[in-house]
Amino acid sequence: MENIKVIIWGFGAMGSGMAKMLVNKKGVEIVGVCDKAEHRVGKDMYEVIGVKSEGDKPVIIKDNIEEIVKNTKADVALLATDSFTRGAFDKIKFILENKINVISTAEEMAYPEAQEPELAKELDRIAKENGVTVLGTGINPGFVLDLLILALTGTCENVEHIKAARVNDLSPFGHAVMVEQGVGLTVKDFEEGVKNGKVAGHVGFPESIRMVADGIGWEVEKIDQTREAIVSNVYRETPYAKVEPGNVAGCRQCGYAYVDGEMKIEMEHPQQILPEKENLETGDYIWIKGTPNISMEIKPEIPGGIGTISMCVNMIPHVINARPGLKTMLDLPVPRAIMGDMRDIIER
Amino acid sequence: MENIKVIIWGFGAMGSGMAKMLVNKKGVEIVGVCDKAEHRVGKDMYEVIGVKSEGDKPVIIKDNIEEIVKNTKADVALLATDSFTRGAFDKIKFILENKINVISTAEEMAYPEAQEPELAKELDRIAKENGVTVLGTGINPGFVLDLLILALTGTCENVEHIKAARVNDLSPFGHAVMVEQGVGLTVKDFEEGVKNGKVAGHVGFPESIRMVADGIGWEVEKIDQTREAIVSNVYRETPYAKVEPGNVAGCRQCGYAYVDGEMKIEMEHPQQILPEKENLETGDYIWIKGTPNISMEIKPEIPGGIGTISMCVNMIPHVINARPGLKTMLDLPVPRAIMGDMRDIIER
Repeated sequence: MENIKVIIWGFGAMGSGMAKMLVNKKGVEIVGVCDKAEHRVGKDMYEVIGVKSEGDKPVIIKDNIEEIVKNTKADVALLATDSFTRGAFDKIKFILENKINVISTAEEMAYPEAQEPELAKELDRIAKENGVTVLGTGINPGFVLDLLILALTGTCENVEHIKAARVNDLSPFGHAVMVEQGVGLTVKDFEEGVKNGKVAGHVGFPESIRMVADGIGWEVEKIDQTREAIVSNVYRETPYAKVEPGNVAGCRQCGYAYVDGEMKIEMEHPQQILPEKENLETGDYIWIKGTPNISMEIKPEIPGGIGTISMCVNMIPHVINARPGLKTMLDLPVPRAIMGDMRDIIER
Repeated sequence: MENIKVIIWGFGAMGSGMAKMLVNKKGVEIVGVCDKAEHRVGKDMYEVIGVKSEGDKPVIIKDNIEEIVKNTKADVALLATDSFTRGAFDKIKFILENKINVISTAEEMAYPEAQEPELAKELDRIAKENGVTVLGTGINPGFVLDLLILALTGTCENVEHIKAARVNDLSPFGHAVMVEQGVGLTVKDFEEGVKNGKVAGHVGFPESIRMVADGIGWEVEKIDQTREAIVSNVYRETPYAKVEPGNVAGCRQCGYAYVDGEMKIEMEHPQQILPEKENLETGDYIWIKGTPNISMEIKPEIPGGIGTISMCVNMIPHVINARPGLKTMLDLPVPRAIMGDMRDIIER
């Protein structure tokens, strides 16, 4: 059997991270890279990721996806360009219509039914017509605050209430994330930013909540979200942000879902730089009230960047094996690391 | 769509627990119960589980499975009679040949390839010939020391070493479990019991280890298992066991798997009565060394009885949806609680 052939579309931190992961895996090869950034176009992918290719043919980064698709017979495209279904839609459509499976990092694509039911239906139709599969995944949404919760409920006779929290550290991230999360702002500017949309916070709570609720069969009546400033008591500084005492170190986002008039799902996602400056421990936490009660913690939290990269790459064989259509993490076998030959996981 | 129809074969703690869970679920009904115990045969299942049936037709417990299968059109049989594949084989074969899906609690059936590859192949063939599916599952093997580990590795680029522990409390269990685990014995008798097989300990390490290793693509060269006495320093007593200081409160079972000459999977399962008497906290623990490292804990441990009952019931729709053949938890979507109508999860 030939290697599994992968296209990467979007070569920022996520896309290039997937490339670094893939070049160390057996039975899989990258056959094309598409990116718009001028400083990358025309370069060999192996150079950009700093991995010397021994005997590997160069993979030149192009800004023209049509050309890449025409000249390669890819099995799957990893799309790391967008956060929103609406933004990723035309790209996904194009790939599907070329009979190539898609794995998208777009947070909303983890459960597009939540906020874009019409587009979700359309993607499902296109994928089925072309005999291929599209999946959105990542660390969150995609794992910590949805799939992992669901897996734990698998051991429950009954679930009454779910609370989960992801307390993480934004320090490794760059300028764009600092702006999105309002890091370094005064409280007043942060609150204005929340109102005018400049402080976007975390994308994905409606998706995680709906995945959990639909997964166990709860009908969600309403989802409330709040974004509030995490005010620092001390001076905090990273290469991309300076936070004076009294200003904003990050954004605490909460999501609440109501089922049968009761608040049954509660999610908390405080993201900030240098939480250890105020002795805050990071971690992923899940508390299920039911039969039985379950209390889980992962300390420190599963890191966001590596986690998203790994989830997308590790789902490649499951997406290739899947029946055609739009799939979510609810539909496919559990993700797992791939330490052997990726082709061994492909069903004939 | 009609209710999903379930047969329960084996009406001990597990089988009757599944019945209690099922009568509270929507879109599913129990159409037959098979059990050999004289004090149960001929009785109405609803009486035995102590749930008054309002408008439900009685389900009389029978010791003749042929009769039950002939007179019901069941979708799935829950088989809670055995621990070993060899013991369960003829029963599974009979059900499959009647074109009914099977979910088995037999620990070895969670991954029969590990110790009974010939029987596994045979079951796969029979299931495919009859267009139905067979799955073995439970809390452990089936979840804590295999599927949950695998799910966490899904967020990893790379895995170097896996260690996991399940520290649990045997106090709620009865006489049979006390004997199997050697509770109350002198250390000398325990050690003899390990040699002559009377102290069986936990069944399922080879299955969990092989599921994890095959799941991520490691080839296991060797599995070592040890069973040692947990010697109590204090007097411990439950309704089914008395342990004098210096005698055995339980069995610490360990499993070690070698890959490429290195010990890469390490599992520890100390089971004892009243661990709190010596300030021991129970819990489920997973430590993954890789990229990234992951450290997870669930405290207290997910309880074994409820966990196994829930896993078997919650996997019913996934087993009905599955392609025919012998499946493991590696092949099917992640288990989750069913709080809505079970029929909503069935794919048309």
